[in-house]
Amino acid sequence: MIKIVLLGAGNLGSLLTAKLLNNKAINLVQVYNRSIEKIEYLKNKIEITDNLSELKKADIYILCVSDNAISAISSKLNFPTALVLHTSGGTSLNELKSNSKKGVMYFLQTFSKDRNIDFSTIPACLEAENEEDLKLLSELASGISKKIYVINSDQRQHLHVAAVFVNNFVNYMYKIGNDICFKTNVPFDILKPLILETASKIDEILPFEAQTGPARRNDTKTIEKHKILLLKNQKEIYTLLTDFIIQSYE
Amino acid sequence: MIKIVLLGAGNLGSLLTAKLLNNKAINLVQVYNRSIEKIEYLKNKIEITDNLSELKKADIYILCVSDNAISAISSKLNFPTALVLHTSGGTSLNELKSNSKKGVMYFLQTFSKDRNIDFSTIPACLEAENEEDLKLLSELASGISKKIYVINSDQRQHLHVAAVFVNNFVNYMYKIGNDICFKTNVPFDILKPLILETASKIDEILPFEAQTGPARRNDTKTIEKHKILLLKNQKEIYTLLTDFIIQSYE
Repeated sequence: MIKIVLLGAGNLGSLLTAKLLNNKAINLVQVYNRSIEKIEYLKNKIEITDNLSELKKADIYILCVSDNAISAISSKLNFPTALVLHTSGGTSLNELKSNSKKGVMYFLQTFSKDRNIDFSTIPACLEAENEEDLKLLSELASGISKKIYVINSDQRQHLHVAAVFVNNFVNYMYKIGNDICFKTNVPFDILKPLILETASKIDEILPFEAQTGPARRNDTKTIEKHKILLLKNQKEIYTLLTDFIIQSYE
Repeated sequence: MIKIVLLGAGNLGSLLTAKLLNNKAINLVQVYNRSIEKIEYLKNKIEITDNLSELKKADIYILCVSDNAISAISSKLNFPTALVLHTSGGTSLNELKSNSKKGVMYFLQTFSKDRNIDFSTIPACLEAENEEDLKLLSELASGISKKIYVINSDQRQHLHVAAVFVNNFVNYMYKIGNDICFKTNVPFDILKPLILETASKIDEILPFEAQTGPARRNDTKTIEKHKILLLKNQKEIYTLLTDFIIQSYE
């Protein structure tokens, strides 16, 4: 049975801790966090610590810490035969400074506290330094997710920026939609079926084919009518994206 | 039983025709289209015509034609006691030029050929000139959708531009995600769970609260790393949206 120590108690760390505690094929032996208060809820189930020099022996150490802390924390890990993983999309494997084997297990999903997540459907993007480490990493990851991808550091960093577009920027479009509804006194709920259908549609149709709307049709009359309704920042976004969409279909 | 004539055989017109043919409480008596070929598949089920002077008597005439054609086609409809509807989000009620009662039935959704749509979940945004007409319109609409909203022309035009953000621009973000995946040789499928979760999340959490990512954290190190990976237009969008997100949380 794979022995695991997990470091970090942010959104991903907490969700992954819960997932690993429920997995009988994996032995989560300890959770570390720099502030012990955030992990005290675990103390009746598992060993906890806020001291890196008290980490227990394990096969795999999973860092669920902020990107900026990966180098500093990993540099204190001296476990030559163990595998140390980070879980960051935007960080290359060689930012791990541990005296150990090294790898990455990046879950390509957005994590929020208070929102339940089914890990089995989340793509696990794996990277290791050699086949043997990758095998161990795959064994761990397949206990968590059904969707395993082997992804190198360059690909992962591209995926990370792609995720900014399809998650962060998409959410910001939702925010603008919400702002417009609020201004005109209609419930934001009215947009939700459209939002869900837009996301579902590209499971069957490529985004390039799924594009509709005034920019896609180069319908300048509607575009000008729309711009009048928008606030300054909204109008700037509308204009830029409309121009690029028109260009894409010329 | 409400008698209906439907005009137009685009995406919405075709889907609505199918929906009304299956509705036993509504009597769809005729479908018009300027080119008869597109509606010939209906000829064994219902009367069809490409001649506006041959329109049959009905209680309601539904225009599912392009925005630019609404004035011209409606101006040829002389049915003083009937209700003439358009179905356009971006067009005000008074662009209807018919000699008739007037209204709007705007379905806030994206429609594609070859994709089945459950009308019962699509918000129907209704507008009429008086209570009596609104009652008839509501009777029709509630035979199609379970989500009925009374929305005036100004609100509808705001909703229409909000829909551009949450549908057209969101889809364009998906396209950029797809382009980045293609460039770095990973399957676009890997982003789909994230895309669906992003859309589902705002059913519980307001977009302003749901925002995550480097811009939300003002993580300038990651932002600079991302910009290096992007093509010119992608980078311009990334920069603009990142700046606006940072501003929103200052």
